[in-house]
Amino acid sequence: MTVKGAQIKNIVVIGGGTGTFTVLSGLKKYPHNLTAIVSMADDGGSTGRLRDELGVLPPGDIRQCLVALSEADILLRDLFNYRFNGGNLDGHSFGNLFISAFEKITGDLDKALEEVSNVLKIKGRVLPITLDKVQLRAKLENGTELNGENEINNSWLLSKFGIKRLFLNPQAKANPRAIQAILEADAIVVGPGNLYCSIVPNLLVKGIPEAIRKSKALKIYICNVMTKHGHTDGFKVNDFVNAIEEYLGDKIFDYIIFNNKKPSAALLGRYSSEGDWVKSEESILKNRRFIGANLVSPELYRQDPADKLKRTLIRHDPDKLAKVIISLL
Amino acid sequence: MTVKGAQIKNIVVIGGGTGTFTVLSGLKKYPHNLTAIVSMADDGGSTGRLRDELGVLPPGDIRQCLVALSEADILLRDLFNYRFNGGNLDGHSFGNLFISAFEKITGDLDKALEEVSNVLKIKGRVLPITLDKVQLRAKLENGTELNGENEINNSWLLSKFGIKRLFLNPQAKANPRAIQAILEADAIVVGPGNLYCSIVPNLLVKGIPEAIRKSKALKIYICNVMTKHGHTDGFKVNDFVNAIEEYLGDKIFDYIIFNNKKPSAALLGRYSSEGDWVKSEESILKNRRFIGANLVSPELYRQDPADKLKRTLIRHDPDKLAKVIISLL
Repeated sequence: MTVKGAQIKNIVVIGGGTGTFTVLSGLKKYPHNLTAIVSMADDGGSTGRLRDELGVLPPGDIRQCLVALSEADILLRDLFNYRFNGGNLDGHSFGNLFISAFEKITGDLDKALEEVSNVLKIKGRVLPITLDKVQLRAKLENGTELNGENEINNSWLLSKFGIKRLFLNPQAKANPRAIQAILEADAIVVGPGNLYCSIVPNLLVKGIPEAIRKSKALKIYICNVMTKHGHTDGFKVNDFVNAIEEYLGDKIFDYIIFNNKKPSAALLGRYSSEGDWVKSEESILKNRRFIGANLVSPELYRQDPADKLKRTLIRHDPDKLAKVIISLL
Repeated sequence: MTVKGAQIKNIVVIGGGTGTFTVLSGLKKYPHNLTAIVSMADDGGSTGRLRDELGVLPPGDIRQCLVALSEADILLRDLFNYRFNGGNLDGHSFGNLFISAFEKITGDLDKALEEVSNVLKIKGRVLPITLDKVQLRAKLENGTELNGENEINNSWLLSKFGIKRLFLNPQAKANPRAIQAILEADAIVVGPGNLYCSIVPNLLVKGIPEAIRKSKALKIYICNVMTKHGHTDGFKVNDFVNAIEEYLGDKIFDYIIFNNKKPSAALLGRYSSEGDWVKSEESILKNRRFIGANLVSPELYRQDPADKLKRTLIRHDPDKLAKVIISLL
């Protein structure tokens, strides 16, 4: 697609996981410069095993962004998403092994990503938000401590007791290239994605909220389509915005894009054990910051049986979402 | 290097393992068309685990040939040879995982190799000698049965009792593309390599000895530099030739290239538990079929500690060897 009479813009997408995959897949079709900045807090599934066994940084979220931005042959993209089934390799994503092996050889994830990006012919670039090895931790209001993204992700206690403090251990320094990308951005897109396990961990990295606040970019938040039981039960659109802006330290979003179309009863029925669709508060409907649109993908995501993690089954439609983002630039 | 006034030739190299890696590494520098045809009998180490756990064809020998022929960035070649160290992935070669994952996705090793060859920018091509899943078996003269390439490779009984029969189970059909390459070759180079575990298994594939005999190519055998204790103790050059020509069904080699320079005492001392250097019989010294030259690499091969297999430590020098081969074309 071309953007008539428009300039090429620097768009920075901040997140991790399947939400960011969706945003990038849609935006890739436009001629702008894309930079994906991804969380390094993941420690579940194939990624968690690689962290434990090889001492590498978490490759999973990076892999999804690389695949989204790849312009290589479909088979090569399939290869990166391929999961081994059986034996000691069971559940490992090939792309994760690729990234981790390259990190071991180069001793440097940033250098490894340059090489992997060449192989996958990616349009744009993918930057880890930090190059420090960190663990996500949560202290709940009742005193419970949850250690690790995977443990937090699978806990149902966050909604029940409330989060007292979410933090990275040890405290992480921002990747200087991520800071630079944020400062040079024309637009920053945050989300969608798992609020406490994919989005907020980026904002816990020292220097990131400051850089986002300082950047002259247009700032856009993409609200999730669905809540997550145990984490964001009952959250409406503005609840997500408030939660994130609290970690950002200011009301910084110029626009909030949200889905205003209820997914089909069939989709919601299949998803009911995971969460409910995110409704919008009356108060935001006449607020020009909030852009509602029909954004939901009509198809339920079909998960690879070799993939051992819980994945969001109801997702944004990449093309519908990108169209709204582009209309705001 | 250029070949003055000479035509581009089709050179087929038959083998598997590090010997074939060496031949290809040397020949790659000349402008001829290279086809490596490799044994599919390997079942040890990383390759054996992948065969068992994923039901794939053995990737290890293919990987070595691909790396030898690769003109990709050195980091990408290093990646293919990288071995994971620690955890469930311990000892797995990344290149093996790459080939096996692609075979699982495409359902077809030949198709997978086309893709991997593109990624590695290989000069030439690598063909499995068969696409059938086979096991190498040996019956010894004393009645002992050895099942699998790895068991045979690690056995010391072959020299002691003698081999009654070496065969593939089930009987394998040749890859039609391998047959075609052999028939269209201007030169066929057999060896060097582990006699019973890398070289002969190719000649046990139905149709291969017939095709080699039928081909009008110049036929060259590269004799090993070293014997292998328990397999080829006391073998001189012509013993290797006779053993192979027995499986080929005729005296077909136009030339036999052998090393006539004793490796340094330091090298031989380090290697003494593995084997001895291969001497040449008086009878061959005035025979024009036999080309002796100083072919040994002055350096001992340094093995990756994560590599769990026994590897030949004293090897041919790729450039010296290629020069002699090219001089015969």
